Amino acid sequence: MCPVFFISDPSDPRLDDVRDLNHSDHRPDLPGGKGLVIAEGPLVVPRLLESRFPVRCIVGFPEKVEKFLASHEVDPAIPIYTVSRETLAQVAGFDMHRGLLATADRAPAYSVDEVVRDARTLLILEGVGDHENIGAMFRNAAGLGVDGVLFGNGCADPLYRRSVRVSMGHVLRIPFAHFGGTHTTWQRELSPLADASFRLISLTPDPGAAHLADALVDDEGRPWERLALLAGAEGPGLTEHAMRATHIRARIPMAPGTDSLNVATSAAIALYERARSLR
Amino acid sequence: MCPVFFISDPSDPRLDDVRDLNHSDHRPDLPGGKGLVIAEGPLVVPRLLESRFPVRCIVGFPEKVEKFLASHEVDPAIPIYTVSRETLAQVAGFDMHRGLLATADRAPAYSVDEVVRDARTLLILEGVGDHENIGAMFRNAAGLGVDGVLFGNGCADPLYRRSVRVSMGHVLRIPFAHFGGTHTTWQRELSPLADASFRLISLTPDPGAAHLADALVDDEGRPWERLALLAGAEGPGLTEHAMRATHIRARIPMAPGTDSLNVATSAAIALYERARSLR
Repeated sequence: MCPVFFISDPSDPRLDDVRDLNHSDHRPDLPGGKGLVIAEGPLVVPRLLESRFPVRCIVGFPEKVEKFLASHEVDPAIPIYTVSRETLAQVAGFDMHRGLLATADRAPAYSVDEVVRDARTLLILEGVGDHENIGAMFRNAAGLGVDGVLFGNGCADPLYRRSVRVSMGHVLRIPFAHFGGTHTTWQRELSPLADASFRLISLTPDPGAAHLADALVDDEGRPWERLALLAGAEGPGLTEHAMRATHIRARIPMAPGTDSLNVATSAAIALYERARSLR
Repeated sequence: MCPVFFISDPSDPRLDDVRDLNHSDHRPDLPGGKGLVIAEGPLVVPRLLESRFPVRCIVGFPEKVEKFLASHEVDPAIPIYTVSRETLAQVAGFDMHRGLLATADRAPAYSVDEVVRDARTLLILEGVGDHENIGAMFRNAAGLGVDGVLFGNGCADPLYRRSVRVSMGHVLRIPFAHFGGTHTTWQRELSPLADASFRLISLTPDPGAAHLADALVDDEGRPWERLALLAGAEGPGLTEHAMRATHIRARIPMAPGTDSLNVATSAAIALYERARSLR
């Protein structure tokens, strides 16, 4: 049985992990940020507890915590704090109607090699600066069977609170790593993937690119054994540098008079086509 | 050459169409709402001008309006007002950094018959209450070749400002109509579609459902000539009432340990599979 502490004083330092969430979001890139990982809600909190991230505490409304503990095992070393909705709103800086949070320290980052080693399907992102799109990508990647995500230059932090939430916690499960290098050099780190028999595929709205369904199989219609799908920011898309480092450019055919789809939606369609080719 | 009027007084009634946008959003379902349709930004404003909605005015920063008029024909009967960023912020109630808006009255609604008549592929929504999801559905539907959208019970207003924006203006192009009836009766209006040779397909995360790729073709692998795809709210999904009114239930296969995808993403994948079957 885990000890549960009720806290009524909003200034109690035991609540510091969830203080001023909207202002600082504990972002590691902000001065003084702690780099905490924050999970919200009864769907995502269990994924943090099952993850490799060292959990620091659980905070919630008494009834939400009680319900949670009735169906989940929690390491007794993890402190659990209950607070009223009013107290939590004062601490967090806004009304957290979900009423259940957990915080964790960042786990050591994976290397690119670790993510690639046993992977069959990878998603590689470049310039995706929107936290919601990053979160959506992880949710889609998890649902559609991706083994790992790799970040090229210019992507938003996948462990930002909003990314974690939109990902439904899958950013805590799917291994990810960052390539080194700059805007014009990170692509060089793709060659070891090609050497490891990955088929590298650029997703682009370019009408001259191959149909997605054709690009994801070889000349005899067989799926590539190992495949890495590259997707770039909405608007500019992948850089020419990145696309040149891949084997083929693939498009989702679009109806006349329409623009490209949202980048997370495009990636979801491409990953569906990948799963489909492996049926 | 269109006359352009510079307005510096935030209380000028000619700016009433864009007043207090965040508060009332001019929603027709609010008392006193005007039911205006509001397009924002240089991508969406032209789609409003080309649409069947009667445009009332164009409002923007002088440099944005000038740039817009340099590349678009505008009916000289439509008044054009330029305002400073500060004035527009005061009128709208927040900083509109896009700096270009157009407003229109609602056009008469289409009937279900009008939307169905010449359609080959339809999207039918039930209980989708989120304006962003509605907008995303229209963007995806446009890009992936849907001829019309039909609304069952419980959907959000597709002409709400946020829906228009997220749809990239495609809600102004793709015809849509609402079924009558309640939560448990609207589905009866699906039978005329079946009579008109539409294959009715329910999208569901149910693992017992058919694979999407199989459901979208007949026993000989040929695409259905006419097809209507039904999608329901995230969480509850389609009602059993709705699914019973369709020919088949189809699923996007999900990796173990994952939930369903976002409803707009799921619909996008299904519509991609439809377009793929028609290649």
